[in-house]
Amino acid sequence: MTIFTEASAAGTPLVGIIMGSASDWDIMKNAVAVLEEFGIPHELNVVSAHRMPHDMVEYGTQAVDRGLRAIIAGAGGAAHLPGMMAALTPVPVFGVPVPSKYLRGEDSLLSIVQMPKGVPVATFAIGEAGAANAALHVVACMATTDSELLKKLIAYRCRQTEAARAMVVPPHVVM
Amino acid sequence: MTIFTEASAAGTPLVGIIMGSASDWDIMKNAVAVLEEFGIPHELNVVSAHRMPHDMVEYGTQAVDRGLRAIIAGAGGAAHLPGMMAALTPVPVFGVPVPSKYLRGEDSLLSIVQMPKGVPVATFAIGEAGAANAALHVVACMATTDSELLKKLIAYRCRQTEAARAMVVPPHVVM
Amino acid sequence: MTIFTEASAAGTPLVGIIMGSASDWDIMKNAVAVLEEFGIPHELNVVSAHRMPHDMVEYGTQAVDRGLRAIIAGAGGAAHLPGMMAALTPVPVFGVPVPSKYLRGEDSLLSIVQMPKGVPVATFAIGEAGAANAALHVVACMATTDSELLKKLIAYRCRQTEAARAMVVPPHVVM
Amino acid sequence: MTIFTEASAAGTPLVGIIMGSASDWDIMKNAVAVLEEFGIPHELNVVSAHRMPHDMVEYGTQAVDRGLRAIIAGAGGAAHLPGMMAALTPVPVFGVPVPSKYLRGEDSLLSIVQMPKGVPVATFAIGEAGAANAALHVVACMATTDSELLKKLIAYRCRQTEAARAMVVPPHVVM
Amino acid sequence: MTIFTEASAAGTPLVGIIMGSASDWDIMKNAVAVLEEFGIPHELNVVSAHRMPHDMVEYGTQAVDRGLRAIIAGAGGAAHLPGMMAALTPVPVFGVPVPSKYLRGEDSLLSIVQMPKGVPVATFAIGEAGAANAALHVVACMATTDSELLKKLIAYRCRQTEAARAMVVPPHVVM
Amino acid sequence: MTIFTEASAAGTPLVGIIMGSASDWDIMKNAVAVLEEFGIPHELNVVSAHRMPHDMVEYGTQAVDRGLRAIIAGAGGAAHLPGMMAALTPVPVFGVPVPSKYLRGEDSLLSIVQMPKGVPVATFAIGEAGAANAALHVVACMATTDSELLKKLIAYRCRQTEAARAMVVPPHVVM
Amino acid sequence: MTIFTEASAAGTPLVGIIMGSASDWDIMKNAVAVLEEFGIPHELNVVSAHRMPHDMVEYGTQAVDRGLRAIIAGAGGAAHLPGMMAALTPVPVFGVPVPSKYLRGEDSLLSIVQMPKGVPVATFAIGEAGAANAALHVVACMATTDSELLKKLIAYRCRQTEAARAMVVPPHVVM
Amino acid sequence: MTIFTEASAAGTPLVGIIMGSASDWDIMKNAVAVLEEFGIPHELNVVSAHRMPHDMVEYGTQAVDRGLRAIIAGAGGAAHLPGMMAALTPVPVFGVPVPSKYLRGEDSLLSIVQMPKGVPVATFAIGEAGAANAALHVVACMATTDSELLKKLIAYRCRQTEAARAMVVPPHVVM
Repeated sequence: MTIFTEASAAGTPLVGIIMGSASDWDIMKNAVAVLEEFGIPHELNVVSAHRMPHDMVEYGTQAVDRGLRAIIAGAGGAAHLPGMMAALTPVPVFGVPVPSKYLRGEDSLLSIVQMPKGVPVATFAIGEAGAANAALHVVACMATTDSELLKKLIAYRCRQTEAARAMVVPPHVVM
Repeated sequence: MTIFTEASAAGTPLVGIIMGSASDWDIMKNAVAVLEEFGIPHELNVVSAHRMPHDMVEYGTQAVDRGLRAIIAGAGGAAHLPGMMAALTPVPVFGVPVPSKYLRGEDSLLSIVQMPKGVPVATFAIGEAGAANAALHVVACMATTDSELLKKLIAYRCRQTEAARAMVVPPHVVM
Repeated sequence: MTIFTEASAAGTPLVGIIMGSASDWDIMKNAVAVLEEFGIPHELNVVSAHRMPHDMVEYGTQAVDRGLRAIIAGAGGAAHLPGMMAALTPVPVFGVPVPSKYLRGEDSLLSIVQMPKGVPVATFAIGEAGAANAALHVVACMATTDSELLKKLIAYRCRQTEAARAMVVPPHVVM
Repeated sequence: MTIFTEASAAGTPLVGIIMGSASDWDIMKNAVAVLEEFGIPHELNVVSAHRMPHDMVEYGTQAVDRGLRAIIAGAGGAAHLPGMMAALTPVPVFGVPVPSKYLRGEDSLLSIVQMPKGVPVATFAIGEAGAANAALHVVACMATTDSELLKKLIAYRCRQTEAARAMVVPPHVVM
Repeated sequence: MTIFTEASAAGTPLVGIIMGSASDWDIMKNAVAVLEEFGIPHELNVVSAHRMPHDMVEYGTQAVDRGLRAIIAGAGGAAHLPGMMAALTPVPVFGVPVPSKYLRGEDSLLSIVQMPKGVPVATFAIGEAGAANAALHVVACMATTDSELLKKLIAYRCRQTEAARAMVVPPHVVM
Repeated sequence: MTIFTEASAAGTPLVGIIMGSASDWDIMKNAVAVLEEFGIPHELNVVSAHRMPHDMVEYGTQAVDRGLRAIIAGAGGAAHLPGMMAALTPVPVFGVPVPSKYLRGEDSLLSIVQMPKGVPVATFAIGEAGAANAALHVVACMATTDSELLKKLIAYRCRQTEAARAMVVPPHVVM
Repeated sequence: MTIFTEASAAGTPLVGIIMGSASDWDIMKNAVAVLEEFGIPHELNVVSAHRMPHDMVEYGTQAVDRGLRAIIAGAGGAAHLPGMMAALTPVPVFGVPVPSKYLRGEDSLLSIVQMPKGVPVATFAIGEAGAANAALHVVACMATTDSELLKKLIAYRCRQTEAARAMVVPPHVVM
Repeated sequence: MTIFTEASAAGTPLVGIIMGSASDWDIMKNAVAVLEEFGIPHELNVVSAHRMPHDMVEYGTQAVDRGLRAIIAGAGGAAHLPGMMAALTPVPVFGVPVPSKYLRGEDSLLSIVQMPKGVPVATFAIGEAGAANAALHVVACMATTDSELLKKLIAYRCRQTEAARAMVVPPHVVM
């Protein structure tokens, strides 16, 4: 029995998914879907760096003791949540650039990825793909010490490969 | 006697200048020079959002009670200091995008200016001009309730106008 | 009784909101809403830098004597209004980049924020958030010398924090 | 005898070259060189939109009566001089984006070229090429009503073509 | 009676408006509208640099002899028409960056404005505003030697100023 | 009888069209249409660099022996398929940047075109035009050793020229 | 005794650092320095996606069995190595955008971070900071199941905080 | 004996390398070096689209009859040479974006790659790598009908692979 099975039984979240606003949900739900598919216990919270800075600090400072092993943080525009969370805890932070209204997430991406030396945020693609991939990367990290999870991940990727292989593009007439 | 004169006498800083790293000094000293020219009492601190988050929180939460009337914050890359300071205090924050090594401050600018509704950072140009202008804007804000300072500001700008008027471009021969 | 209360009674605007065209209204109304919420007397004008340059000069040169303590200026594209207003008056100018049709406000942002040393424009985010934040920053600057207004601002931000705290993202099943 | 010959004799400038700062000279001298080559009477002035706005207005409002037939305006960063000059006079304005320190003139270009409908600025390339070309375009416009100048322009371009034709790239061995 | 009146009577076009494709019409019609408003005789042609290069060369080489005094050229994407036309004739060329499907005209703008020293294209804003302004700039250039046209242009701009002055933004309650 | 006629008869594909996902079809079908118009035998496959890397390797390593003379590869976002295919085979690769959801294909373009020295990918425009042009370029390359195909290509381009010549823009009244 | 201590004793690398060219070393050595500081056994290889694709495949397919728990991959320009490695192994990949000659790493960043859903690459800042942070993030991931390593990481960050706190900016005279 | 051997004997160039200015040589010589290494007969010319448009037309219209099987065209800024050459001949054109002074070749890249449907330019990376790769792609296209050349290309790439394999990054101490 792996640690994840134990944790699942206990219901203790291993991954914290946080986002700057409820409006980020449409993007961030893609991370949730992945974690659910892999049975990773997780929790969901709106933690706004700018409107709830003290809550953010509290979240960050308690993360280790609460047993979180990864934090997936999504934010848009001047997206400070992932980087600040990374500053507040040694728990690894995985950042998701949420698309912004006018700059389509270019601002979000740069605000998240361009962290200074010493305080990393693992950054993923802008939008839905990035949210899903942040969760998949968390799974991959956890799978390095959990052989059952690794099997699940390998199976997941095999299915993904098969799905791609099954794609057909409209028939054409060879002349 | 205006509040500034009193404050100067007392030595209590009215403006806090903070920056994410000592390496930002070459840019931020342009803000200091302006405040000194106008005799605005100020203080200088390195406050790294990412490496000193708790100090940053403390700085922000004490700002009102310490009597700060403006905070000038400079940072580069994923520049979170100005925005986080704005989240921590109602004291107005003036952000300076410090040029970054590879993206020349485009990342700094977007990380500072694209704040979400509710938590403003007044943002200025990338680099030296932005640092000086942040300070000049602080002076202008203070001058709205300090007629002596307003006189100084008007005089400063008159000198500036005169300096521009005195500029000559190399003579040429009219044919 | 604070100066704002007095001014309100007198109906004298303390803040001038100007924009380059009536088409900027959908963005700039967000600044108006904030000022109204805080009870800051203000005035609204279309002042086009390019189509009404002489009116713009007049507006700028009279701003101090008319008692304006802040000017919020919105413009899009080659957005010259905020910078020119800053050149014409020592009253602090707060610039709002209005989104442009093809470049989404990137041109507006750079045209406003990249002011040369000596003539600052405090710049905010592109679009609605920027308009609201320009007004909030004006409030914050005014609040530094008005304890009643500061209380209002702190209360506003507390409500904002509570609203963020109250956000819930769709429930999920912890496994 | 063409108007240009007359004007040359009288020494009355037909083209006003203005720039926001003496530091723009290294770029703008390329415009001067072209006008001198074609014998177009011109004048040179530093007219800072931001530090000398009233002088700028005066320059613009007098341009027609002073007999200017073109204004070449160079500026960098939040480059407002060309657009404001275009707002102040029906004399056609030719804008030169001067390279900026951090954004290499991208801000200058957008600030100049993205003018709203109704107030055009003819914009040219960033830097030296743009300055020379602004002057060449002025020459071309003037040449449409001055057959002598047209001959000169055609000759100039023929020389240019010959110079390009004379270019040789390092010899290589055909195998 | 000015040359324009004469030309109008004769119906000889003074301005050639060309575009790379009929699909550019929605943008370029804004240039036509301006020329019609000012009564400038003009002609309209699709001249594709890439699909009709020899026609383009012919158009360019005949431009002077056909009496054209300005060419307004619109194109999108890798927009070569304005620059090539400028290479083919001393008649001044005014370029309009037509918005492109994916890059919104950023490619069009750079392809048109970044001409090398020696072959200028006067460039205007991306899209509708740019098309109208190219035509207005042509009018301004022509007006430098046509006092009647100058009067019309000044009147046009006065109407424009009045229209801007007449703009009202939604009423608000001054407190 | 040229090689193409022979190949057509035999039905052996000379061109492989591959794309990273079936969702790229709407863009890539423009390449197919061109090849069909020219009667170039081709094949269509979804080959995902990221989800089917081993299939991709197989495709690349067999390309020469299978007789492919060109590979047209379309992909979006972090678009690795064209470059990896170029790494796997000496068969020339023609890359099509498929527009991405948030960055409109700017990421696709840079991921495809910025290949290091030694492993080229011939890159075309973002989107539909790029797909069609990749195929046309393949045709042009093949036509260099196939006089019949060259005739077809010349005829195709003549028709294209005629179509452009036939374009009319809405009539206007010459004044 | 943790797994890391065991692994260190055995000398088996837990982290593979790969880069597209030896010229990437100046950037990637910053990742090495971090791993050495934390005593994480690692290996260094040049694995060029474009010049050594089959070696890359081999590296990827063996990564799990060889016991790698993380792969740090650096590449510049059309940077495909991190994404392809992620396609080849469930071992988590951490990507470092190496600055490119002309686009300063913007192409590298987009080529690495914009991965499609299903195949994540954890991406870090362009250049030296990104390389160091990729390694720090690997350490943080490993520390989630290694309490000794977590202690080291916390100590490392404390030293980092102290170093930032010790920074002083040049003294100034409070007036 | 292949066609290339014959051509070499005859000295007839199969590839035309053209560039907009002699100043492009430092970039374009990288294309020459590749062609020389493969023994492809070629010719070198400065053909400026903007300063020598009629020569450019002549070059393009004669390309087929002169036996050219590929044209490699380099240009910078508003880079029209590759696209115009593609418009003038069915001979396939391979474009090289030459870095520009202020925009580092971003303008060159967009001006070359964003060609409209119907007139393709195969585009390569900005600068030296792009020039070399354009030539390598030409070689690859020619090799599809020349088995000797294909052998040479495969050998070239093998050497390239070996060179990459031989790269070592500084030794490190496995702990």
